[in-house]
Amino acid sequence: MNVNGRHYRTIWLNADGWAVDIIDQTKFPHVFEVVTLRTPEEAAFAIKDMLVRGAPLIGVTAAYGMALAMRQDASDAALEGAYELLVKTRPTAINLKWALDGMMRVLKPHAAGGRAAQAYARAAAIAEEDVAINQAIGRNGFAIIRNIAARKGPGETVNILTHCNAGWLATVDWGTATAPIYTAHDAGIPVHVWVDETRPRNQGASLTAWELLHHGVPHTVIPDNTGGHLMQHGLVDMAIVGTDRTTARGDVCNKIGTYLKALAAHDNGVPFYVALPSPTIDFTVVDGVREIPIEQRGGHEVSHLTGRTEDGRIETVEIVPRGSKVANYAFDVTPARFVTGLITERGVIAANREAIARAFPERAAQ
Amino acid sequence: MNVNGRHYRTIWLNADGWAVDIIDQTKFPHVFEVVTLRTPEEAAFAIKDMLVRGAPLIGVTAAYGMALAMRQDASDAALEGAYELLVKTRPTAINLKWALDGMMRVLKPHAAGGRAAQAYARAAAIAEEDVAINQAIGRNGFAIIRNIAARKGPGETVNILTHCNAGWLATVDWGTATAPIYTAHDAGIPVHVWVDETRPRNQGASLTAWELLHHGVPHTVIPDNTGGHLMQHGLVDMAIVGTDRTTARGDVCNKIGTYLKALAAHDNGVPFYVALPSPTIDFTVVDGVREIPIEQRGGHEVSHLTGRTEDGRIETVEIVPRGSKVANYAFDVTPARFVTGLITERGVIAANREAIARAFPERAAQ
Repeated sequence: MNVNGRHYRTIWLNADGWAVDIIDQTKFPHVFEVVTLRTPEEAAFAIKDMLVRGAPLIGVTAAYGMALAMRQDASDAALEGAYELLVKTRPTAINLKWALDGMMRVLKPHAAGGRAAQAYARAAAIAEEDVAINQAIGRNGFAIIRNIAARKGPGETVNILTHCNAGWLATVDWGTATAPIYTAHDAGIPVHVWVDETRPRNQGASLTAWELLHHGVPHTVIPDNTGGHLMQHGLVDMAIVGTDRTTARGDVCNKIGTYLKALAAHDNGVPFYVALPSPTIDFTVVDGVREIPIEQRGGHEVSHLTGRTEDGRIETVEIVPRGSKVANYAFDVTPARFVTGLITERGVIAANREAIARAFPERAAQ
Repeated sequence: MNVNGRHYRTIWLNADGWAVDIIDQTKFPHVFEVVTLRTPEEAAFAIKDMLVRGAPLIGVTAAYGMALAMRQDASDAALEGAYELLVKTRPTAINLKWALDGMMRVLKPHAAGGRAAQAYARAAAIAEEDVAINQAIGRNGFAIIRNIAARKGPGETVNILTHCNAGWLATVDWGTATAPIYTAHDAGIPVHVWVDETRPRNQGASLTAWELLHHGVPHTVIPDNTGGHLMQHGLVDMAIVGTDRTTARGDVCNKIGTYLKALAAHDNGVPFYVALPSPTIDFTVVDGVREIPIEQRGGHEVSHLTGRTEDGRIETVEIVPRGSKVANYAFDVTPARFVTGLITERGVIAANREAIARAFPERAAQ
């Protein structure tokens, strides 16, 4: 997508041909800054400290982290070490493990001499696959938006609520939840996006709003508390969110607060869709609420907040009284019964075990 | 309740015997500052700009605003003018109109000469009545907490979730939603409060956390997105919230986001209670979602946030990209079907028309 008139992906090879460039997403929405990763440790830091975030982009960054490791030292020990380093950075993200396991399968059989080149090729292939998947999600989700638009009056806006950032900044390009929105917008359907702020890290206000703004998609940032009220008053036609991990029966693990919006959608008859690349389906897990461990992050993300002062400085302020405890659960699980459909690269699938297995028989059977 | 070891109410007569002192709640949680109101315009400003907030405290402040007006000029025109000025400050707060209408009933029949003294006496009576009501709410809600504690193991903590601030800072003393909590805590029942941050104005993080901290009640501040996850995992025994306006059938208008927590409580079998002084019941309204106008406030409250920098300055930062629209709906309505019970000064009442009318026959019949 475009930034200041130039097309960017979220991760690309540096002009030197081996280092890896990313956009530092912790600086959004006020600063656009490219960071160069030169070691697996820098890649691990970028994932752990969320310079990159979003399941697909985390996977690609981890894959390039393996490539950076192999360039330094392509021994078996270095290979194992890089895997261990990178796999621990974000325990909830299934793409991370998926990408790293794929790298291991490709690299292990090779002699050390060929591993670096193979690693770069494999990382690039994962990136290209992500873009192709998101374009397919965009086409499949577009059909839903077009149908809603057709039921409304001519020229009437389709209002779509989204939570967190499953946008192009969370992927290599296009995004998952945003791909149908961009596709519809580009096709001339009038869409408007209600952007959940998404506390505590404000990915909606910082990232989704920023990328929609740069692409010219009408949108309104709202506190996370607002969506239920909007749905009660007919101001939301559909919700589309992303997911970090979807179970074999369609339970959806996504950014904390997703479950609350799904409940409100259900109570008001608003269709609630989850857009996902199929690698985020974890066929080893069935009951998401019971089985998926939820990452707890530092309290500082809740008690402090960073923004821009009136005179343009980036400043961090404390917003909780000293002495009060805080808790920071990063994700929650939306049970499949609240999910209208899963928008995947293979079509829109009902959120149940049979439909998911039918769509991905090669993985469900494993 | 206590602040720095000294007992305070939230509104009291200044030492000069006629001006009115309040605590500037916009400065919380980092600064504790008393402000003196000397004119009805200052009282209106204090309500409109939320130096005071919370339905009961708004009512008392408006009543004292009338008293300040009568001290300046006790003519019929001034009486009408002060009413008009004050009634417009917060359109959703039913207590405001209730308190002002009561003042008008008392003051109108009097000759101008007696109005100021009558106004002060009536405002003081409203304040005393609020304290007595909240103490009764505390006793009635305490019985619920005690029952939950009795079903748990000995010494096990009762976890209570609350949203926004229906605490002593929202009333003259004790609070509404917090009155049962303070009563249980003081009685030695181990309670722990999950405090919703309550975006966009952060009344939970700024006010509820602050007052619980000063009273010594264990608590944890959480982003508004978190409550559903906690309920899914058995970490919430009950929810208690306040309300700005409850309809004749028990629909509850409260701070935006309350509805989402009620949905999650319902989905997880967690009792969801609303604590309210009966003046906040509006018997003229039945269907809350359709009939209650929801105040929209300035976008600045969403796009900017104030806190304390590391070196102790109070600073406001912008957290939404320039160019992105924001929306700021202040309240939502929780339909009565999601409310386990209404904790009032006359006992815990089922949230339906018959039960409410039975408890308050003198008002329901009007």
